[in-house]
Amino acid sequence: MSETETSAGWLTREQLRDARERLPIVYVSVVPVRVDERGVVTTIGLLLRASSEGTIDRELVSGRVLYHERIRDALIRHVEKDLGPLSMPRIPLSPQPFTVAEYFPTPGVTPFHDPRQHAVALAFVVPVMGDCSPQQNALDLAWVTPDEAAALAALGEMDGGHGVLLRQALAHVGHPL
Amino acid sequence: MSETETSAGWLTREQLRDARERLPIVYVSVVPVRVDERGVVTTIGLLLRASSEGTIDRELVSGRVLYHERIRDALIRHVEKDLGPLSMPRIPLSPQPFTVAEYFPTPGVTPFHDPRQHAVALAFVVPVMGDCSPQQNALDLAWVTPDEAAALAALGEMDGGHGVLLRQALAHVGHPL
Amino acid sequence: MSETETSAGWLTREQLRDARERLPIVYVSVVPVRVDERGVVTTIGLLLRASSEGTIDRELVSGRVLYHERIRDALIRHVEKDLGPLSMPRIPLSPQPFTVAEYFPTPGVTPFHDPRQHAVALAFVVPVMGDCSPQQNALDLAWVTPDEAAALAALGEMDGGHGVLLRQALAHVGHPL
Amino acid sequence: MSETETSAGWLTREQLRDARERLPIVYVSVVPVRVDERGVVTTIGLLLRASSEGTIDRELVSGRVLYHERIRDALIRHVEKDLGPLSMPRIPLSPQPFTVAEYFPTPGVTPFHDPRQHAVALAFVVPVMGDCSPQQNALDLAWVTPDEAAALAALGEMDGGHGVLLRQALAHVGHPL
Repeated sequence: MSETETSAGWLTREQLRDARERLPIVYVSVVPVRVDERGVVTTIGLLLRASSEGTIDRELVSGRVLYHERIRDALIRHVEKDLGPLSMPRIPLSPQPFTVAEYFPTPGVTPFHDPRQHAVALAFVVPVMGDCSPQQNALDLAWVTPDEAAALAALGEMDGGHGVLLRQALAHVGHPL
Repeated sequence: MSETETSAGWLTREQLRDARERLPIVYVSVVPVRVDERGVVTTIGLLLRASSEGTIDRELVSGRVLYHERIRDALIRHVEKDLGPLSMPRIPLSPQPFTVAEYFPTPGVTPFHDPRQHAVALAFVVPVMGDCSPQQNALDLAWVTPDEAAALAALGEMDGGHGVLLRQALAHVGHPL
Repeated sequence: MSETETSAGWLTREQLRDARERLPIVYVSVVPVRVDERGVVTTIGLLLRASSEGTIDRELVSGRVLYHERIRDALIRHVEKDLGPLSMPRIPLSPQPFTVAEYFPTPGVTPFHDPRQHAVALAFVVPVMGDCSPQQNALDLAWVTPDEAAALAALGEMDGGHGVLLRQALAHVGHPL
Repeated sequence: MSETETSAGWLTREQLRDARERLPIVYVSVVPVRVDERGVVTTIGLLLRASSEGTIDRELVSGRVLYHERIRDALIRHVEKDLGPLSMPRIPLSPQPFTVAEYFPTPGVTPFHDPRQHAVALAFVVPVMGDCSPQQNALDLAWVTPDEAAALAALGEMDGGHGVLLRQALAHVGHPL
């Protein structure tokens, strides 16, 4: 998590670490997509990041909802943070997520795992209409077809349950798995 | 229903009338909206039509799904038929409707009533990004705020259950009722 | 389709065949499940039927919505028709299906295929609390775990897209795919 | 909030108060209902509590999700805490809430207000099948029809946005508003 976000959250790093050991943290998870004029998902954007183990992980966009921040504002902030300020996300009209992913610090409780914390992530599929480019610590941003995305997700190349969430998103938009 | 649609449906008027007395008919119902860049609904488009009783009805966009037509194509066709070819609807990514309205020929079975038929309407909130103008037999297209829409719907000024569906749509996007 | 259902639908076999060539037909598709007291799906019920090609198909519960029939009544009727009168289905409170499956007579338009007709199927996951047994032309009713169901569905052992729908249902209830 | 819950949350009262000033807190909100065998909501359970201003508030069941607690376990815990250990809630199969209510400490940001905190509440309609009785600091538990509930909610007799959430729940289950 960047310095910027930490300060915007009105928590020192230490306070955030303490809270993460005691409370579930509200997250948003975003599956960024390109769509055609009929609303069909044509490609899905995956972030490539170097993991701490030296491997390359494919990841979705996700991050914390800050104190006094609306969910729709957190969605805009995290999409622009990861895909750039010109990505032009189409924020969903309804606050109803397509699913809720429960990331547990203990592996195996749910399909979702985050060693740092217990996070409750509201998941949305978000079309981006503008120019996207990897930001911050991402090595690259890859656009793959729904079939390629489903295959990557099934191969376990996406850590911590991001592959499961991606496949749930594909199911939600009607893509066969 | 226009001649164009009847012929596109591969049914004569008589055949369609017969079918309507024997089978539930698949419909789409659309709440057309304008949204801001945060995905907040700012206005809702209501069609004004002269009813057969000589009153003015406020209506949502709706119509039949044709044989061998995808739901997303029916959504585009009906929005463009009622709001014009430049209305630029953003078709939903997921086939999951926010609700299903069951229009019965007998009043009182459900909140939805259509004397002509038993229609099963998949309901979607659809943002329109382009120029909209009333088409065909609509007298006008009025853009009202969510609060105004909720008030109009509650006053019973929308026939056949369109007011109920509009209020369900407002609830779905998080608007207080 | 049984004689009983045909007569209840106020259509002769011939009339129904004609309508199926001209209109999308409203269907319900049900994924019957057993759940524990925490709402976790423990097993999924699959019908085994002999196909016209002499193979054994695994199928979900599904069938037509009749003229003047509520969706919730169609759900009860089809579950009891396929799983028996003592199956005690828990009908969903909301008319919002978890997805809508568009069965096309032409293969490849959508993941769902039905050579007889264009069917628009509202899909629900329905817990059954009572005694279930295969009815009518089903050879057996198999209860499988979510993992087994996901595997069967992926192997293409379920015809016409039932496997796709089953996997979408598993995604909806949060099961990893 | 009771002593029991505070200790189960692994936070002292002071630590919880601190966290509430800095982080959004994960909540579940439950609309407890009685349903008939067709899945139709027949009555809704409202808790009557004496407010700090000396008035009687009608409230829904709601409460915090604890560290390392599944959402479905939080739903069971809060329903049993408020309606009693014999209430037998039918926990939803899917983690998808019908809406997400954002309670802000500042009034007017959203329709939901909680002076103590920023809470992000996942909202579910939960049928209860067993014996319910008011627990703890509730004065009574009233079962009202959907029409009565809609009227009470509209009259502003439910504080902090519980009326708005109740009406959104009624819309979700198809009840006319």
